[in-house]
Amino acid sequence: MKDTGLINITEEDFINYEERKRARLINSLSGFKSANLLGTISSDKKTNLSIVSSTFHLGASPALMGIIIRPDISPRHTLENIRSEKFFTLNHVNEHIYKKAHQTSARYPRETSEFDSCNLTEEYLEEFHAPFVKESNIKVALKLIREIKIEENGTHFLISSVKSIWAPKSALSEDGHINIENAGSICVSGLDSYHSTSIIERLPYAKP
Amino acid sequence: MKDTGLINITEEDFINYEERKRARLINSLSGFKSANLLGTISSDKKTNLSIVSSTFHLGASPALMGIIIRPDISPRHTLENIRSEKFFTLNHVNEHIYKKAHQTSARYPRETSEFDSCNLTEEYLEEFHAPFVKESNIKVALKLIREIKIEENGTHFLISSVKSIWAPKSALSEDGHINIENAGSICVSGLDSYHSTSIIERLPYAKP
Repeated sequence: MKDTGLINITEEDFINYEERKRARLINSLSGFKSANLLGTISSDKKTNLSIVSSTFHLGASPALMGIIIRPDISPRHTLENIRSEKFFTLNHVNEHIYKKAHQTSARYPRETSEFDSCNLTEEYLEEFHAPFVKESNIKVALKLIREIKIEENGTHFLISSVKSIWAPKSALSEDGHINIENAGSICVSGLDSYHSTSIIERLPYAKP
Repeated sequence: MKDTGLINITEEDFINYEERKRARLINSLSGFKSANLLGTISSDKKTNLSIVSSTFHLGASPALMGIIIRPDISPRHTLENIRSEKFFTLNHVNEHIYKKAHQTSARYPRETSEFDSCNLTEEYLEEFHAPFVKESNIKVALKLIREIKIEENGTHFLISSVKSIWAPKSALSEDGHINIENAGSICVSGLDSYHSTSIIERLPYAKP
Protein backbone atom coordinates (compact mmCIF):
# COMPACT_ATOMS: atom_id res chain seq x y z
CA MET A 1 0.00 0.00 0.00
CA LYS A 2 1.40 3.38 -1.04
CA ASP A 3 0.93 6.42 1.16
CA THR A 4 -1.34 7.63 -1.65
CA GLY A 5 -3.88 5.01 -0.58
CA LEU A 6 -3.33 3.24 -3.88
CA ILE A 7 -1.88 -0.16 -4.69
CA ASN A 8 1.11 -0.20 -7.04
CA ILE A 9 1.34 -2.94 -9.66
CA THR A 10 4.65 -2.82 -11.48
CA GLU A 11 5.63 -4.22 -14.86
CA GLU A 12 7.56 -6.94 -13.00
CA ASP A 13 4.32 -7.87 -11.24
CA PHE A 14 1.93 -8.06 -14.17
CA ILE A 15 4.40 -9.65 -16.55
CA ASN A 16 4.13 -12.74 -14.35
CA TYR A 17 0.32 -12.78 -14.29
CA GLU A 18 -1.27 -15.60 -16.27
CA GLU A 19 -2.30 -14.43 -19.73
CA ARG A 20 -6.02 -13.89 -19.11
CA LYS A 21 -5.47 -12.05 -15.82
CA ARG A 22 -2.92 -9.75 -17.46
CA ALA A 23 -5.35 -9.12 -20.34
CA ARG A 24 -8.09 -8.12 -17.87
CA LEU A 25 -5.75 -5.77 -16.03
CA ILE A 26 -4.19 -4.07 -19.04
CA ASN A 27 -7.55 -3.75 -20.80
CA SER A 28 -8.80 -1.78 -17.76
CA LEU A 29 -6.13 0.92 -17.92
CA SER A 30 -7.15 3.14 -20.81
CA GLY A 31 -10.52 4.00 -19.22
CA PHE A 32 -13.98 3.50 -20.67
CA LYS A 33 -14.13 2.19 -24.21
CA SER A 34 -16.59 2.49 -27.05
CA ALA A 35 -18.77 -0.53 -27.85
CA ASN A 36 -19.38 -1.04 -31.55
CA LEU A 37 -20.33 -3.77 -33.95
CA LEU A 38 -18.43 -3.89 -37.23
CA GLY A 39 -20.59 -5.18 -40.06
CA THR A 40 -18.82 -6.60 -43.11
CA ILE A 41 -19.51 -8.68 -46.19
CA SER A 42 -17.18 -10.88 -48.21
CA SER A 43 -16.76 -10.88 -52.00
CA ASP A 44 -19.05 -13.93 -52.14
CA LYS A 45 -21.73 -12.12 -50.07
CA LYS A 46 -21.20 -13.81 -46.70
CA THR A 47 -21.80 -11.35 -43.86
CA ASN A 48 -19.82 -11.03 -40.66
CA LEU A 49 -20.36 -9.10 -37.44
CA SER A 50 -17.78 -8.43 -34.75
CA ILE A 51 -17.77 -6.41 -31.53
CA VAL A 52 -14.84 -4.00 -31.14
CA SER A 53 -13.94 -1.74 -28.22
CA SER A 54 -11.04 -0.03 -29.95
CA THR A 55 -12.72 2.42 -32.30
CA PHE A 56 -11.65 6.00 -31.76
CA HIS A 57 -11.97 9.46 -33.23
CA LEU A 58 -9.04 10.31 -35.49
CA GLY A 59 -10.09 13.63 -36.95
CA ALA A 60 -13.05 15.68 -38.14
CA SER A 61 -11.60 17.27 -41.26
CA PRO A 62 -11.32 14.99 -43.09
CA ALA A 63 -13.74 12.83 -41.08
CA LEU A 64 -11.62 9.87 -40.01
CA MET A 65 -12.02 7.03 -37.58
CA GLY A 66 -9.36 4.68 -36.22
CA ILE A 67 -9.93 1.02 -35.38
CA ILE A 68 -7.53 -1.51 -33.89
CA ILE A 69 -8.12 -5.08 -35.05
CA ARG A 70 -6.47 -8.09 -33.48
CA PRO A 71 -6.19 -10.65 -36.25
CA ASP A 72 -5.67 -13.56 -33.89
CA ILE A 73 -9.17 -13.50 -32.42
CA SER A 74 -12.64 -13.27 -33.81
CA PRO A 75 -12.40 -10.19 -36.07
CA ARG A 76 -10.16 -12.17 -38.45
CA HIS A 77 -12.92 -12.58 -41.03
CA THR A 78 -13.91 -8.97 -40.43
CA LEU A 79 -10.40 -7.86 -41.37
CA GLU A 80 -10.37 -9.98 -44.53
CA ASN A 81 -13.74 -8.60 -45.58
CA ILE A 82 -12.70 -4.99 -44.95
CA ARG A 83 -9.54 -5.51 -47.02
CA SER A 84 -11.39 -6.98 -49.96
CA GLU A 85 -14.54 -4.86 -49.99
CA LYS A 86 -13.25 -1.57 -48.45
CA PHE A 87 -16.72 -0.52 -47.24
CA PHE A 88 -17.95 -1.62 -43.82
CA THR A 89 -20.29 -0.41 -41.09
CA LEU A 90 -19.96 0.72 -37.48
CA ASN A 91 -23.01 0.25 -35.24
CA HIS A 92 -23.26 1.47 -31.63
CA VAL A 93 -24.08 -1.21 -29.08
CA ASN A 94 -27.02 -0.35 -26.80
CA GLU A 95 -28.48 -1.91 -23.67
CA HIS A 96 -30.99 -3.99 -25.66
CA ILE A 97 -28.34 -5.84 -27.66
CA TYR A 98 -25.20 -5.94 -25.51
CA LYS A 99 -25.44 -9.69 -24.79
CA LYS A 100 -25.88 -10.49 -28.47
CA ALA A 101 -23.10 -8.05 -29.32
CA HIS A 102 -20.73 -9.67 -26.81
CA GLN A 103 -21.56 -13.09 -28.23
CA THR A 104 -20.15 -12.05 -31.63
CA SER A 105 -16.70 -12.29 -30.01
CA ALA A 106 -16.97 -16.10 -29.92
CA ARG A 107 -14.84 -17.96 -32.48
CA TYR A 108 -17.41 -18.91 -35.06
CA PRO A 109 -16.32 -20.69 -38.25
CA ARG A 110 -16.02 -18.59 -41.38
CA GLU A 111 -19.23 -19.91 -42.96
CA THR A 112 -21.26 -18.76 -39.94
CA SER A 113 -22.65 -15.23 -40.00
CA GLU A 114 -22.74 -13.73 -36.52
CA PHE A 115 -25.92 -11.94 -37.59
CA ASP A 116 -27.60 -15.36 -37.62
CA SER A 117 -25.81 -17.04 -34.73
CA CYS A 118 -26.22 -14.01 -32.42
CA ASN A 119 -29.74 -13.14 -33.57
CA LEU A 120 -29.12 -9.63 -34.88
CA THR A 121 -30.74 -8.28 -38.03
CA GLU A 122 -28.94 -7.32 -41.24
CA GLU A 123 -30.06 -4.01 -42.67
CA TYR A 124 -29.03 -2.42 -45.97
CA LEU A 125 -29.16 1.37 -46.26
CA GLU A 126 -28.73 3.49 -49.37
CA GLU A 127 -26.07 2.20 -51.73
CA PHE A 128 -23.82 0.58 -49.08
CA HIS A 129 -23.43 -3.12 -49.72
CA ALA A 130 -22.05 -3.84 -46.23
CA PRO A 131 -24.71 -4.76 -43.66
CA PHE A 132 -25.78 -2.46 -40.83
CA VAL A 133 -27.30 -3.73 -37.57
CA LYS A 134 -31.01 -2.93 -37.56
CA GLU A 135 -31.19 -2.95 -33.74
CA SER A 136 -28.48 -0.28 -33.43
CA ASN A 137 -29.53 3.39 -33.18
CA ILE A 138 -26.36 5.05 -34.40
CA LYS A 139 -24.80 3.66 -37.57
CA VAL A 140 -21.86 4.86 -39.61
CA ALA A 141 -20.82 3.81 -43.12
CA LEU A 142 -17.03 3.65 -43.32
CA LYS A 143 -14.50 3.21 -46.09
CA LEU A 144 -11.03 1.81 -45.49
CA ILE A 145 -8.36 4.38 -46.34
CA ARG A 146 -5.20 2.69 -45.13
CA GLU A 147 -4.00 -0.13 -42.91
CA ILE A 148 -0.96 0.20 -40.67
CA LYS A 149 0.58 -2.95 -39.22
CA ILE A 150 1.63 -2.48 -35.59
CA GLU A 151 4.84 -4.49 -35.57
CA GLU A 152 5.08 -4.40 -31.78
CA ASN A 153 2.23 -6.90 -31.38
CA GLY A 154 0.85 -7.83 -34.79
CA THR A 155 -2.35 -5.81 -34.52
CA HIS A 156 -3.75 -3.79 -37.41
CA PHE A 157 -4.59 -0.11 -37.23
CA LEU A 158 -7.28 0.78 -39.77
CA ILE A 159 -7.75 4.37 -40.87
CA SER A 160 -11.23 4.77 -42.26
CA SER A 161 -13.26 7.58 -43.71
CA VAL A 162 -16.79 8.49 -42.60
CA LYS A 163 -19.14 8.27 -45.60
CA SER A 164 -22.60 8.48 -44.07
CA ILE A 165 -24.28 8.63 -40.65
CA TRP A 166 -27.65 7.49 -39.31
CA ALA A 167 -28.89 8.66 -35.91
CA PRO A 168 -32.25 9.25 -34.17
CA LYS A 169 -33.61 12.73 -34.83
CA SER A 170 -34.16 13.18 -31.09
CA ALA A 171 -30.43 12.69 -30.41
CA LEU A 172 -29.23 15.30 -32.91
CA SER A 173 -28.38 18.76 -31.59
CA GLU A 174 -28.49 21.92 -33.67
CA ASP A 175 -24.80 22.45 -32.92
CA GLY A 176 -23.77 19.09 -34.41
CA HIS A 177 -23.37 17.10 -31.17
CA ILE A 178 -25.12 13.73 -31.06
CA ASN A 179 -26.55 12.79 -27.67
CA ILE A 180 -25.39 9.18 -27.85
CA GLU A 181 -26.58 8.55 -24.28
CA ASN A 182 -30.15 9.39 -25.33
CA ALA A 183 -29.68 7.10 -28.31
CA GLY A 184 -28.97 4.28 -25.85
CA SER A 185 -25.27 3.78 -26.60
CA ILE A 186 -23.31 2.08 -23.83
CA CYS A 187 -19.62 1.65 -23.04
CA VAL A 188 -17.21 -1.07 -21.99
CA SER A 189 -14.47 -1.33 -19.38
CA GLY A 190 -11.84 -4.00 -19.20
CA LEU A 191 -12.49 -7.06 -21.32
CA ASP A 192 -16.08 -7.77 -20.45
CA SER A 193 -17.82 -5.10 -18.34
CA TYR A 194 -20.75 -3.19 -19.89
CA HIS A 195 -21.94 0.17 -18.53
CA SER A 196 -24.76 2.60 -19.21
CA THR A 197 -24.07 6.30 -18.70
CA SER A 198 -25.58 9.36 -16.97
CA ILE A 199 -24.66 12.78 -18.25
CA ILE A 200 -22.84 15.00 -15.78
CA GLU A 201 -22.48 18.10 -17.92
CA ARG A 202 -21.59 19.48 -21.31
CA LEU A 203 -18.81 22.02 -20.84
CA PRO A 204 -18.08 25.06 -23.01
CA TYR A 205 -14.92 25.41 -25.09
CA ALA A 206 -12.09 26.05 -22.58
CA LYS A 207 -10.25 29.38 -22.68
CA PRO A 208 -7.26 30.42 -20.56
CA MET B 1 -36.42 10.82 -42.34
CA LYS B 2 -35.57 7.22 -43.27
CA ASP B 3 -38.08 4.45 -42.86
CA THR B 4 -35.71 3.18 -40.14
CA GLY B 5 -36.78 6.12 -37.99
CA LEU B 6 -33.29 7.52 -38.24
CA ILE B 7 -31.99 10.69 -39.86
CA ASN B 8 -29.32 10.25 -42.52
CA ILE B 9 -26.43 12.71 -42.64
CA THR B 10 -24.24 12.11 -45.66
CA GLU B 11 -20.65 13.12 -46.32
CA GLU B 12 -21.99 15.78 -48.69
CA ASP B 13 -24.04 17.17 -45.81
CA PHE B 14 -21.40 17.35 -43.08
CA ILE B 15 -18.60 18.48 -45.37
CA ASN B 16 -20.51 21.77 -45.62
CA TYR B 17 -21.03 22.17 -41.86
CA GLU B 18 -19.00 24.96 -40.30
CA GLU B 19 -15.82 23.60 -38.73
CA ARG B 20 -16.92 23.46 -35.08
CA LYS B 21 -20.28 21.85 -35.89
CA ARG B 22 -18.58 19.21 -38.01
CA ALA B 23 -16.07 18.56 -35.18
CA ARG B 24 -18.93 18.04 -32.70
CA LEU B 25 -20.71 15.65 -35.05
CA ILE B 26 -17.72 13.54 -36.07
CA ASN B 27 -16.41 13.40 -32.49
CA SER B 28 -19.74 11.83 -31.49
CA LEU B 29 -19.52 8.91 -33.88
CA SER B 30 -17.01 6.53 -32.31
CA GLY B 31 -19.06 6.14 -29.12
CA PHE B 32 -18.00 6.86 -25.55
CA LYS B 33 -14.39 7.86 -25.07
CA SER B 34 -11.90 7.56 -22.24
CA ALA B 35 -11.09 10.71 -20.24
CA ASN B 36 -7.45 10.95 -19.22
CA LEU B 37 -4.95 13.56 -18.21
CA LEU B 38 -1.47 13.20 -19.67
CA GLY B 39 1.22 14.45 -17.29
CA THR B 40 4.57 15.42 -18.77
CA ILE B 41 7.72 17.29 -17.88
CA SER B 42 10.22 19.09 -20.12
CA SER B 43 14.00 18.72 -20.04
CA ASP B 44 14.14 21.95 -18.02
CA LYS B 45 11.61 20.59 -15.49
CA LYS B 46 8.52 22.50 -16.59
CA THR B 47 5.41 20.36 -16.14
CA ASN B 48 2.44 20.11 -18.47
CA LEU B 49 -0.99 18.53 -18.18
CA SER B 50 -3.39 17.84 -21.02
CA ILE B 51 -6.77 16.12 -21.27
CA VAL B 52 -7.05 13.48 -24.00
CA SER B 53 -10.03 11.42 -25.07
CA SER B 54 -8.15 9.28 -27.58
CA THR B 55 -6.26 6.82 -25.40
CA PHE B 56 -7.00 3.20 -26.23
CA HIS B 57 -5.93 -0.33 -25.43
CA LEU B 58 -3.42 -1.63 -27.97
CA GLY B 59 -2.41 -4.96 -26.46
CA ALA B 60 -1.80 -6.80 -23.20
CA SER B 61 1.30 -8.79 -24.10
CA PRO B 62 3.37 -6.70 -24.35
CA ALA B 63 1.30 -4.16 -22.40
CA LEU B 64 0.78 -1.34 -24.88
CA MET B 65 -1.40 1.73 -25.03
CA GLY B 66 -2.20 3.92 -28.04
CA ILE B 67 -2.75 7.67 -27.90
CA ILE B 68 -3.69 10.08 -30.67
CA ILE B 69 -2.27 13.58 -30.24
CA ARG B 70 -3.34 16.54 -32.32
CA PRO B 71 -0.34 18.84 -32.46
CA ASP B 72 -2.34 21.86 -33.54
CA ILE B 73 -4.20 22.26 -30.27
CA SER B 74 -3.24 22.23 -26.63
CA PRO B 75 -1.30 18.96 -26.34
CA ARG B 76 1.52 20.50 -28.41
CA HIS B 77 3.78 20.97 -25.38
CA THR B 78 2.72 17.53 -24.18
CA LEU B 79 3.97 16.02 -27.43
CA GLU B 80 7.29 17.85 -27.24
CA ASN B 81 7.79 16.70 -23.65
CA ILE B 82 6.96 13.09 -24.46
CA ARG B 83 9.42 13.13 -27.36
CA SER B 84 12.26 14.51 -25.28
CA GLU B 85 11.69 12.70 -21.97
CA LYS B 86 10.02 9.44 -23.18
CA PHE B 87 8.31 8.85 -19.81
CA PHE B 88 4.89 10.35 -19.12
CA THR B 89 1.80 9.60 -17.05
CA LEU B 90 -1.83 8.76 -17.73
CA ASN B 91 -4.38 9.71 -15.04
CA HIS B 92 -8.08 8.82 -15.15
CA VAL B 93 -10.45 11.77 -14.90
CA ASN B 94 -13.12 11.39 -12.21
CA GLU B 95 -16.25 13.35 -11.29
CA HIS B 96 -14.39 15.49 -8.74
CA ILE B 97 -11.91 16.90 -11.27
CA TYR B 98 -13.66 16.89 -14.65
CA LYS B 99 -14.03 20.67 -14.81
CA LYS B 100 -10.37 21.22 -13.98
CA ALA B 101 -9.43 18.46 -16.42
CA HIS B 102 -11.48 20.05 -19.21
CA GLN B 103 -9.85 23.39 -18.49
CA THR B 104 -6.42 21.92 -19.37
CA SER B 105 -7.60 21.98 -23.01
CA ALA B 106 -7.34 25.78 -23.07
CA ARG B 107 -4.38 27.20 -25.01
CA TYR B 108 -2.03 28.18 -22.22
CA PRO B 109 1.42 29.57 -23.05
CA ARG B 110 4.35 27.19 -22.77
CA GLU B 111 5.64 28.68 -19.51
CA THR B 112 2.31 27.99 -17.79
CA SER B 113 1.86 24.62 -16.11
CA GLU B 114 -1.74 23.43 -16.33
CA PHE B 115 -1.22 21.87 -12.90
CA ASP B 116 -1.08 25.43 -11.54
CA SER B 117 -3.54 27.17 -13.82
CA CYS B 118 -6.16 24.41 -13.45
CA ASN B 119 -5.55 23.78 -9.74
CA LEU B 120 -4.50 20.12 -9.90
CA THR B 121 -1.71 18.67 -7.77
CA GLU B 122 1.58 17.27 -9.06
CA GLU B 123 2.54 13.99 -7.49
CA TYR B 124 5.77 12.02 -7.95
CA LEU B 125 5.68 8.27 -7.47
CA GLU B 126 8.60 5.85 -7.32
CA GLU B 127 11.37 6.67 -9.75
CA PHE B 128 9.19 8.28 -12.46
CA HIS B 129 10.21 11.86 -13.07
CA ALA B 130 6.99 12.74 -14.94
CA PRO B 131 4.22 14.12 -12.72
CA PHE B 132 1.09 12.20 -11.84
CA VAL B 133 -2.20 13.86 -10.85
CA LYS B 134 -2.73 13.42 -7.12
CA GLU B 135 -6.52 13.80 -7.43
CA SER B 136 -6.76 10.91 -9.92
CA ASN B 137 -7.49 7.40 -8.59
CA ILE B 138 -6.05 5.35 -11.43
CA LYS B 139 -2.61 6.30 -12.69
CA VAL B 140 -0.35 4.65 -15.23
CA ALA B 141 3.33 5.30 -15.91
CA LEU B 142 3.99 5.07 -19.64
CA LYS B 143 7.08 5.04 -21.84
CA LEU B 144 7.03 6.14 -25.46
CA ILE B 145 7.95 3.26 -27.77
CA ARG B 146 7.28 4.72 -31.19
CA GLU B 147 5.51 7.60 -32.89
CA ILE B 148 3.62 7.16 -36.16
CA LYS B 149 2.68 10.27 -38.12
CA ILE B 150 -0.82 10.01 -39.58
CA GLU B 151 -0.27 11.69 -42.93
CA GLU B 152 -4.00 11.91 -43.64
CA ASN B 153 -4.49 14.69 -41.08
CA GLY B 154 -1.18 15.46 -39.37
CA THR B 155 -2.05 13.78 -36.06
CA HIS B 156 0.45 11.66 -34.14
CA PHE B 157 -0.19 8.11 -33.03
CA LEU B 158 1.93 7.29 -29.97
CA ILE B 159 2.62 3.67 -29.07
CA SER B 160 3.54 3.50 -25.42
CA SER B 161 4.47 0.77 -22.99
CA VAL B 162 2.85 0.31 -19.55
CA LYS B 163 5.57 0.50 -16.87
CA SER B 164 3.61 0.76 -13.62
CA ILE B 165 0.01 1.06 -12.38
CA TRP B 166 -1.59 2.64 -9.31
CA ALA B 167 -5.22 1.88 -8.42
CA PRO B 168 -7.39 1.76 -5.28
CA LYS B 169 -7.24 -1.61 -3.55
CA SER B 170 -11.06 -1.67 -3.46
CA ALA B 171 -11.22 -1.50 -7.26
CA LEU B 172 -8.86 -4.42 -7.91
CA SER B 173 -10.41 -7.81 -8.63
CA GLU B 174 -8.67 -11.11 -7.99
CA ASP B 175 -9.01 -11.94 -11.68
CA GLY B 176 -7.08 -8.84 -12.79
CA HIS B 177 -10.05 -6.64 -13.78
CA ILE B 178 -10.05 -3.10 -12.35
CA ASN B 179 -13.47 -1.75 -11.45
CA ILE B 180 -12.81 1.71 -12.88
CA GLU B 181 -16.41 2.75 -12.21
CA ASN B 182 -15.89 2.17 -8.47
CA ALA B 183 -12.66 4.14 -8.75
CA GLY B 184 -14.74 7.07 -10.02
CA SER B 185 -13.50 7.15 -13.62
CA ILE B 186 -15.84 8.88 -16.03
CA CYS B 187 -16.16 9.02 -19.82
CA VAL B 188 -16.65 11.57 -22.57
CA SER B 189 -18.86 11.80 -25.63
CA GLY B 190 -18.47 14.20 -28.49
CA LEU B 191 -16.16 17.12 -27.83
CA ASP B 192 -17.39 18.23 -24.45
CA SER B 193 -19.94 15.94 -22.78
CA TYR B 194 -18.94 14.20 -19.53
CA HIS B 195 -20.74 11.10 -18.24
CA SER B 196 -20.65 8.90 -15.15
CA THR B 197 -21.42 5.21 -15.59
CA SER B 198 -23.60 2.47 -14.07
CA ILE B 199 -22.55 -1.12 -14.53
CA ILE B 200 -24.99 -3.27 -16.44
CA GLU B 201 -23.13 -6.58 -16.26
CA ARG B 202 -19.80 -8.33 -16.60
CA LEU B 203 -20.19 -11.06 -19.19
CA PRO B 204 -18.26 -14.34 -19.38
CA TYR B 205 -15.86 -15.17 -22.21
CA ALA B 206 -18.05 -15.86 -25.25
CA LYS B 207 -18.07 -19.35 -26.80
CA PRO B 208 -19.94 -20.48 -29.92
